[in-house]
Amino acid sequence: MDRLHIFKIGGNIIDNESRLHSFLKDFSSLNESKILIHGGGKEATSVSNKLGIPVKLNNGRRITDTATLDIITMVYAGKINKRIVSKLQALSCDSIGICGADGNAYMSSKRTVEELDFGFVGDITHINKSFFKKLLKNNIIPVCCAVSHDGNGQLLNTNADTIASEIASALSENFEVDLTYCFEKKGVLENIGDLNSVIPIINNEKYEELKNKGLIQEGMLPKLHNCYQALSKGVKEVRIGSFNILSDNKHTKIVL
Amino acid sequence: MDRLHIFKIGGNIIDNESRLHSFLKDFSSLNESKILIHGGGKEATSVSNKLGIPVKLNNGRRITDTATLDIITMVYAGKINKRIVSKLQALSCDSIGICGADGNAYMSSKRTVEELDFGFVGDITHINKSFFKKLLKNNIIPVCCAVSHDGNGQLLNTNADTIASEIASALSENFEVDLTYCFEKKGVLENIGDLNSVIPIINNEKYEELKNKGLIQEGMLPKLHNCYQALSKGVKEVRIGSFNILSDNKHTKIVL
Repeated sequence: MDRLHIFKIGGNIIDNESRLHSFLKDFSSLNESKILIHGGGKEATSVSNKLGIPVKLNNGRRITDTATLDIITMVYAGKINKRIVSKLQALSCDSIGICGADGNAYMSSKRTVEELDFGFVGDITHINKSFFKKLLKNNIIPVCCAVSHDGNGQLLNTNADTIASEIASALSENFEVDLTYCFEKKGVLENIGDLNSVIPIINNEKYEELKNKGLIQEGMLPKLHNCYQALSKGVKEVRIGSFNILSDNKHTKIVL
Repeated sequence: MDRLHIFKIGGNIIDNESRLHSFLKDFSSLNESKILIHGGGKEATSVSNKLGIPVKLNNGRRITDTATLDIITMVYAGKINKRIVSKLQALSCDSIGICGADGNAYMSSKRTVEELDFGFVGDITHINKSFFKKLLKNNIIPVCCAVSHDGNGQLLNTNADTIASEIASALSENFEVDLTYCFEKKGVLENIGDLNSVIPIINNEKYEELKNKGLIQEGMLPKLHNCYQALSKGVKEVRIGSFNILSDNKHTKIVL
């Protein structure tokens, strides 16, 4: 099977011009098939503030009303997505920026209201493998933003980490997939106060140990959950590292 | 040669939910290959006003500084483009929304400063025919917005009428192309005060006559110029009509 490298980058790279450039340079120099998924960073919040739309968060998750969905679509699918694609083209990496509606790439259903109404937030229901395969076969690199759709004309705000994990899982049937989450640190830290205490490998046992000792930071729990989801669905390797994971070998490898 | 239908829609359709739905329904029911190009409508101006960014126009053309380029990219490539694509998917028309950077679809060069500095405005220099052919061959309908790029990482604001004319001209080598401009009236009017005075056919002679008599409205002159450009480069037929040109046969046909 051909190899496929999937990367997810977040705000700490997107919001920093030099880190973004450095990451995209490394990414574009990878010769094998690859896909990039990006989150939104601080720009959606900044545009919301400028437009006077209140930002409502619950446990770090954005409550998405109609005005917020418009902002997310503008910032994620417009400004950030097209900035990344134009930079990749300048690096001779032929790419195409998409949201879930484009080519029906990733579909979701609106999260049902239980204790809390998240608004226009969608959970992934389907990945269009054939669409991704067509793009990759034509050497066009998909650059995916965190907006999906329900197939009935409704766009939905969707977690970028989950989109990455779902795309990686789905394409594991056709490729030998590795999935890399790039975030603000060089990996999962043993000691939150020591940036050099990167844990080289986390397996199931170590994961349970870290959880039990309360050593995993808040935001890292859903990330590790996504990693294990992907591994359990056939993704060969999952890594967590920083924007320069491709030039600097330090990172955390997650295994079953 | 296979047929290819190219449509350009502007603000008067994009800004009106029922007209947009009606147009997209007709468009999606066309069985042959097709491409949609869209302008921006009033939303970019509305977002600029809300963000407190002054809108500077010269003869109806937007002067595009950095802040305005960001807004245009957000509104055209984000909000409007993804709204159209999600609606087309709901109508079972598999489509993909792009700007010029995506797949290197259309490149431009920044307009040189002469009497006036238009800012980040680009004039088309290249259409990536092979990219459009790949999408059409895979039955994925391109939905193109009025943002292009220069290949060096710079996005540029580009006139949607011209993008439509340039794509139509370029693809005339491989397809039998017709190009339709949908705007606020049913066609070019003989008498500006009478909406029913649609001129059925304009040829070169009639065009000169209308120009000499001063019967062509301001905004119509560059539109007709684009039509003749396209015809001179091999486009088979150019039409000007309203949002319901596909269900209502009234329109103006432009011929050499």
